[in-house]
Amino acid sequence: MNNSPSKWMIKNGIFAASHGGKSVLYGHMVIENDVITYLGEEEPADQEGMTIVDGRHQFFIPGLVNSHGHAAMSLLRGYGDDLALQVWLQEKMWPMEAKFTSDDVYTGTALSVLEMLKGGTTTFLDMYDRSERVAEVVEQSGMRAVLMRGVIGLCSEEEQNEKLNQAVQFVRDWHGKANGRITTMMSPHAPYTCPPAFIEKFVQAAHDLDVPLHTHMSETVAEVEQNVRDYGLRPVDHLEKLGVFTRPTLLAHAVHLTDEEIQKLAAHKATISHNPGSNLKLASGVARVPDLLRAGVVVSLGTDGPASNNNLDMFEEMRLAALIHKGVSGDPTAVPALEALRMGTEYGAKSVFLDNTGVFAVGMKADITSLNIDQPHFLPFTDFISHTVYSASAKDVLHVWVDGKQLIKDGVSLTLDEEKIRREAQLAFEGLLTR
Amino acid sequence: MNNSPSKWMIKNGIFAASHGGKSVLYGHMVIENDVITYLGEEEPADQEGMTIVDGRHQFFIPGLVNSHGHAAMSLLRGYGDDLALQVWLQEKMWPMEAKFTSDDVYTGTALSVLEMLKGGTTTFLDMYDRSERVAEVVEQSGMRAVLMRGVIGLCSEEEQNEKLNQAVQFVRDWHGKANGRITTMMSPHAPYTCPPAFIEKFVQAAHDLDVPLHTHMSETVAEVEQNVRDYGLRPVDHLEKLGVFTRPTLLAHAVHLTDEEIQKLAAHKATISHNPGSNLKLASGVARVPDLLRAGVVVSLGTDGPASNNNLDMFEEMRLAALIHKGVSGDPTAVPALEALRMGTEYGAKSVFLDNTGVFAVGMKADITSLNIDQPHFLPFTDFISHTVYSASAKDVLHVWVDGKQLIKDGVSLTLDEEKIRREAQLAFEGLLTR
Repeated sequence: MNNSPSKWMIKNGIFAASHGGKSVLYGHMVIENDVITYLGEEEPADQEGMTIVDGRHQFFIPGLVNSHGHAAMSLLRGYGDDLALQVWLQEKMWPMEAKFTSDDVYTGTALSVLEMLKGGTTTFLDMYDRSERVAEVVEQSGMRAVLMRGVIGLCSEEEQNEKLNQAVQFVRDWHGKANGRITTMMSPHAPYTCPPAFIEKFVQAAHDLDVPLHTHMSETVAEVEQNVRDYGLRPVDHLEKLGVFTRPTLLAHAVHLTDEEIQKLAAHKATISHNPGSNLKLASGVARVPDLLRAGVVVSLGTDGPASNNNLDMFEEMRLAALIHKGVSGDPTAVPALEALRMGTEYGAKSVFLDNTGVFAVGMKADITSLNIDQPHFLPFTDFISHTVYSASAKDVLHVWVDGKQLIKDGVSLTLDEEKIRREAQLAFEGLLTR
Repeated sequence: MNNSPSKWMIKNGIFAASHGGKSVLYGHMVIENDVITYLGEEEPADQEGMTIVDGRHQFFIPGLVNSHGHAAMSLLRGYGDDLALQVWLQEKMWPMEAKFTSDDVYTGTALSVLEMLKGGTTTFLDMYDRSERVAEVVEQSGMRAVLMRGVIGLCSEEEQNEKLNQAVQFVRDWHGKANGRITTMMSPHAPYTCPPAFIEKFVQAAHDLDVPLHTHMSETVAEVEQNVRDYGLRPVDHLEKLGVFTRPTLLAHAVHLTDEEIQKLAAHKATISHNPGSNLKLASGVARVPDLLRAGVVVSLGTDGPASNNNLDMFEEMRLAALIHKGVSGDPTAVPALEALRMGTEYGAKSVFLDNTGVFAVGMKADITSLNIDQPHFLPFTDFISHTVYSASAKDVLHVWVDGKQLIKDGVSLTLDEEKIRREAQLAFEGLLTR
């Protein structure tokens, strides 16, 4: 990454920004170094050393935030589909993941980061193993990320402690690194894969390190039933009892919730990463998103891993969020377009506890995605928020900036070697098949 | 359209074609004039005057079939979203559609045809008014289409007869035209918008003209209840009583069906255009697609009009079909990827009663869509059918042939003036706003 200071002006663009009661602003944006220093209708004077971007024919949205995933699993995209969950996990995913080397994690993550950046995602959360290799890709690519060593605790206490120490060490090594683009969390994988005492150790470590917690919760009916069977409590009460909600906590999935659980999550200010594509594909069900939003819970969007989605297109997740909750609830006003866009941007940042990205405003980090609107599916120019949610896809992305640096220009990565990444991903997969 | 004879060979491609128990074939395809004359692993000799296409790095699928829509409504894309159905229709769509001129129909259809062709759709069904203007676009663009003058019968008998005559005249004028690329149907709009006696006239006309019937049916719970209230029958029995199923019949939506209705539709060999995006967006519900497929009903995919979708991306409809029926039924094996691809291609052609497109085989029309697989979301090369359904989008389309003519090359239209169409669509919308 070239970290030299920079000044940009985007002239005559259309921006997704709250502005005098409207959600779209026609105007100009100035970026100095890593932050937005101006956004308004009046055109500022050019300054020396400023790079001018002709913003016409583009719609600018805050960079998308993918709030839950396992990037390295891109190496298993298409390796197992349309299977029962346990068959998929036990016969397809786990045996292959067990063979993943540290280099596989690097290669798979690079493939995912490339896809996400080209698709307008500027921040992603990643829960995986060998997270230092994930961090390496983030550092090189220029992307923003919330990283953690996700831990499954179904093992000996000795092994548990070793994994916990890795997770703690990762936070110590990487929190705030890459010019502040990397933050970290502590992440016990799920209540059904981590014994209660082990989860309590994560809570304590999160307190000691002053970082949030992230865990899978209530993705399937079966795991909720198991939780009740094993611990006499549904997952929310169980996690509450273990002290999880004494920390800022992001929960992935949260598909199966009672009214009481929703109220409790709202009271604890827990945030949720809704993964509609993955929940549908794995037949987990449809989360109660309209109820969660009504209760004031911050709900963001995640793709989950690329083996259960199977792409990392956040436009698709926004569209799914806007569509399925209408269709399933019978209310065509549920999750309107602007709310879906916020879930993919503003709520995304809030849900991963970042207060410096996700909206366009002076002082915020310059994480910016532009869409090419000179295409039939963006016509007529009725409502760019609607077009972004209901019509656009990752492939409409033209330029992307993260932290004030341009990472994608005319759809092409400026920081990653695209051909090399694709070639290595294919070789890595072939290697996994033969090992 | 240049109608000069042509010969093509696609060398070293990967084709979605049944072949020795597999669903993908690595090989070569020869096209002569409008049909496929060879598809196999062995490379045929080059012939004089043959245009060679380097098929490497591409996945070739039969051109997609969009089996239900109202193309001209692209002019209202994004004009009304997230509204209750009656508000959307009565306050947004109908007042604007009432102002549509014949030129608006042409302009809106051209915008949709451009979007569909660029997105790999080679055949579309269109139910609208002033269908001769739709046919004009089809003729110019080179696309394949099934066209009809859709008729709402909530008017005087005199007006009803006038509309019926227009529908009949359209069939007489256009059936088999544009080098056979245009076929036609007779189309009463819906049981709730056409009195029984009027529907019977359509049945008679369809017999006389020897064309199929197409109508909306059971899209919402409310219209099914109204049918029972008004006629004492659910829609399937009602249409059966009116003789509809004595003709080949394509039904759009069919969301709300009983077991008995499903059996009856299967027995009558009625076909269904499933419109998952539109059904979700308008909160109509989720059709019983796995049950319909199990009963042997031919179920294809449609986008519906661009004002209720809001794009014409058939990859998205295939993905939605593969995803939502898993999520809603709880069965992760429901509508597997290959079945979703067939719904978008083979079943699409069958559902609109075309036996010459929708699959790759010698003697079939050369309607071909190629996807650029040198992109991160197509890696690794595990399963191209899965990637097409779960990962691809309209924007991945590289080349398109219809009837043996190349219409899209490197993503760009060879027959339509893209910039002019976009400009005119914007002007047409602005005209509608001010009239």
